[in-house]
Amino acid sequence: MSSKIHVTVWGENVHEQTHEAVRKIYPKGMHACIADGLRESADFEVRTATLQDPEHGMTEEVLATTDVLTWWGHAAHNKVEDKIVDRIQKRVLEGMGLLVLHSGHHSKIFKRLMGTSCDLSWREAGEKERIWITNPGHAIVQGINASSFEIEHEEMYGEPFGIPAPDETLMISWFQGGEVFRSGVTYTRGNGKIFYFRPGHEAYPTYHQKEVKLILKNGVRWAHSQGRVYPGGCPNVTWDKAPEKLTPQGESVH
Amino acid sequence: MSSKIHVTVWGENVHEQTHEAVRKIYPKGMHACIADGLRESADFEVRTATLQDPEHGMTEEVLATTDVLTWWGHAAHNKVEDKIVDRIQKRVLEGMGLLVLHSGHHSKIFKRLMGTSCDLSWREAGEKERIWITNPGHAIVQGINASSFEIEHEEMYGEPFGIPAPDETLMISWFQGGEVFRSGVTYTRGNGKIFYFRPGHEAYPTYHQKEVKLILKNGVRWAHSQGRVYPGGCPNVTWDKAPEKLTPQGESVH
Amino acid sequence: MSSKIHVTVWGENVHEQTHEAVRKIYPKGMHACIADGLRESADFEVRTATLQDPEHGMTEEVLATTDVLTWWGHAAHNKVEDKIVDRIQKRVLEGMGLLVLHSGHHSKIFKRLMGTSCDLSWREAGEKERIWITNPGHAIVQGINASSFEIEHEEMYGEPFGIPAPDETLMISWFQGGEVFRSGVTYTRGNGKIFYFRPGHEAYPTYHQKEVKLILKNGVRWAHSQGRVYPGGCPNVTWDKAPEKLTPQGESVH
Amino acid sequence: MSSKIHVTVWGENVHEQTHEAVRKIYPKGMHACIADGLRESADFEVRTATLQDPEHGMTEEVLATTDVLTWWGHAAHNKVEDKIVDRIQKRVLEGMGLLVLHSGHHSKIFKRLMGTSCDLSWREAGEKERIWITNPGHAIVQGINASSFEIEHEEMYGEPFGIPAPDETLMISWFQGGEVFRSGVTYTRGNGKIFYFRPGHEAYPTYHQKEVKLILKNGVRWAHSQGRVYPGGCPNVTWDKAPEKLTPQGESVH
Repeated sequence: MSSKIHVTVWGENVHEQTHEAVRKIYPKGMHACIADGLRESADFEVRTATLQDPEHGMTEEVLATTDVLTWWGHAAHNKVEDKIVDRIQKRVLEGMGLLVLHSGHHSKIFKRLMGTSCDLSWREAGEKERIWITNPGHAIVQGINASSFEIEHEEMYGEPFGIPAPDETLMISWFQGGEVFRSGVTYTRGNGKIFYFRPGHEAYPTYHQKEVKLILKNGVRWAHSQGRVYPGGCPNVTWDKAPEKLTPQGESVH
Repeated sequence: MSSKIHVTVWGENVHEQTHEAVRKIYPKGMHACIADGLRESADFEVRTATLQDPEHGMTEEVLATTDVLTWWGHAAHNKVEDKIVDRIQKRVLEGMGLLVLHSGHHSKIFKRLMGTSCDLSWREAGEKERIWITNPGHAIVQGINASSFEIEHEEMYGEPFGIPAPDETLMISWFQGGEVFRSGVTYTRGNGKIFYFRPGHEAYPTYHQKEVKLILKNGVRWAHSQGRVYPGGCPNVTWDKAPEKLTPQGESVH
Repeated sequence: MSSKIHVTVWGENVHEQTHEAVRKIYPKGMHACIADGLRESADFEVRTATLQDPEHGMTEEVLATTDVLTWWGHAAHNKVEDKIVDRIQKRVLEGMGLLVLHSGHHSKIFKRLMGTSCDLSWREAGEKERIWITNPGHAIVQGINASSFEIEHEEMYGEPFGIPAPDETLMISWFQGGEVFRSGVTYTRGNGKIFYFRPGHEAYPTYHQKEVKLILKNGVRWAHSQGRVYPGGCPNVTWDKAPEKLTPQGESVH
Repeated sequence: MSSKIHVTVWGENVHEQTHEAVRKIYPKGMHACIADGLRESADFEVRTATLQDPEHGMTEEVLATTDVLTWWGHAAHNKVEDKIVDRIQKRVLEGMGLLVLHSGHHSKIFKRLMGTSCDLSWREAGEKERIWITNPGHAIVQGINASSFEIEHEEMYGEPFGIPAPDETLMISWFQGGEVFRSGVTYTRGNGKIFYFRPGHEAYPTYHQKEVKLILKNGVRWAHSQGRVYPGGCPNVTWDKAPEKLTPQGESVH
């Protein structure tokens, strides 16, 4: 691979086909809009993949050449095949970065990596969301030169958010209707870095907003691992290969 | 339920049937030995369940009346049905405690809750294991009045152990053959407390040893949640039910 | 000590003397009100201590017989002597629970245990605070049988809150003026359990509110360690006392 | 500053003056040897500072132009002035990286940032240490192309290590004498990344060993924050500057 960061933007691409309101905002699909935003970074090599592609576009080859994957899904989480989820999980553990977006909180891959329900409460009323930065020095929020920023119309997600305690909580949302939500959280699983970012309801032009585009670009750069691949497997270190001299004792079931 | 702590000891119960060496050490099965150890605590109500029972003994009713579940499996992880794993995971998230023992590191339920490979390296040579206590004040190690204790013959498990960063690392093992391992680690997932405890290879009499029995009893008490059930689900808070007065705006896909 | 939980409620007791508005709400001092709330639990043995007492009421004897300490201070953090802070820190590491309340975020003991600035933004405008429960199953929020509760008039504290990533984030506040804050967070340091709880501005009757009193009672019970004392010190294990046989080699500076 | 990473290597520089054995191994001082190892990276700009320098070499100007600080001390922790420790802590919280080496576990700056005792057990017998890598994919261990590496002669450090639960545990040591230790752990405090690395007893040539030099170089690169400075302070957001329209209510103590 070149020295660029190779990003694959995965989009479910269902509501764009079935809802005129969504198509108006994202005529080429949400994944295309997200990908275009990332292409503003000259050091990213960006491609897209969708649910409708063979193997959902998540072939062994695509994953092997992806440094960071972004994932947006909503209506069709259950149409993603389990064997593809296995494959993505394996790559994350090896070191591929993962950005999970908005309704992707209930995707199979996010629930798989978290081990929890990832449940939340919600409301679609086009209300105002104000996102507060809880660590203004973090790489993911660089360029947001304010304590908070607003999204004029968004879907509300409310606590409790059924996730494990995050490694870092970077953003918390205030909603006009009275709720709060941990909107930017990070995890490490195996050697993979994971960033969940809340905004992005398909009925609103969120992915056109400059702060959102900036955070996604920062998120990709943050999630890009510079380490080597984390080796999986359960090697048997036989007694004669032990670091210290050893004489086998006792019974055996192997 | 009474004020006792209701414990269910789950055993795979395979090697006890197939290996004479195992049967000699655990004539009634490993689960029976583990259960007997826990029964030394008068405030525990202990029963057992095995892979061979209908629904592996993990019926809705059993789980609903279990405060803490202990899990030992090795040879037949894949014979545990996915729908049963779903059910156990749901109960852990609600608040049931879970003790995962030794080769249970590769059980479906542990991998499900961790989201990672749970891989490790291993060697069956009956070598000495010395378990160091890294937080001597923790409830799980009460009564171990020493910095470390030894198990004369054990299987070696070596790092890297493919787990998320633990909430607490309580024990680390030194092996005669030269390896180390995080042998006592804790997690919270949803409202469930999880304790992984390394020792317990079926070819050795580990579950007869007093320090091991003590740590299991402490572990059950620690994992027993006194909270209420964590509610699952994704409630829709409609605009007219929002805490603050709200007028719906924008498009809708719901 | 008896089987009761021994609680010491520490109060700075300054604004109660200097501000008529505070005295009206807390005629016997804030510490007396907090202590009275805790005394609703028959299994607590509660006493108080204030800044003005000899050694601030934090003598070796008091600390040695305290299971859980609660700390409220605001105007006089710097009047607490460093050697007393050393003593409290030592007891927390050994296993004494600590509840840090409201403006105690800037107390010497909290900053000492956190290692960070504990800074935040603030506003005193008597606005509404709505506290959301992010883990409804946790022991600290038992009895709050709702997703959130409100305090009619409170001081606003806003993010960024300069703390390390919490072990658990149990509550997040929504403020009428538009901010959010992590209002209930927990930590373990040494063998001590620490709970920071945000509400409690002296100009409002917050410690008279039933949800606040309930959370403080739950917090004390949660922070009460049942483990033994965590031993401090740096013991020298001489070569002849090593667990494995050893012959000293190389140079020495000791 | 240029695009290089600016590293300041701090050395206590006491035993080098008083012990012939140390001077033989580190004729120009340990700090000089550590600095030379880091200079193997062309993208680092490295300077040194010692206890004996004015303000211990930790002037406002030096700290303001330091991206990553490394800290080795042993015999004279208490000679480091508190006001200098305050200054270093402030810079770490703002985003300066910090590598704490070996006996620096008991330095004022490490204890300040951890909030705990940082105690451990120890033995100086020149025994063998084998360091196991627990996350082989992590940036800090890149180039260590093995599961573990050995140091022929080292001081033993044993658990319990009195630290908060690390963000990441990257290395665990096996000692010939029978102990174990968490030898590579990371933390984030404010916007600063902190890496504690165990080896480095002054009586042995540890800082000449290639794996140690490699890990230090990786550690510097990892700890280098690319974010902006984390702003400190407790701003008062007056009611007329609140994000949402607000009318002040209730009493006031400010």
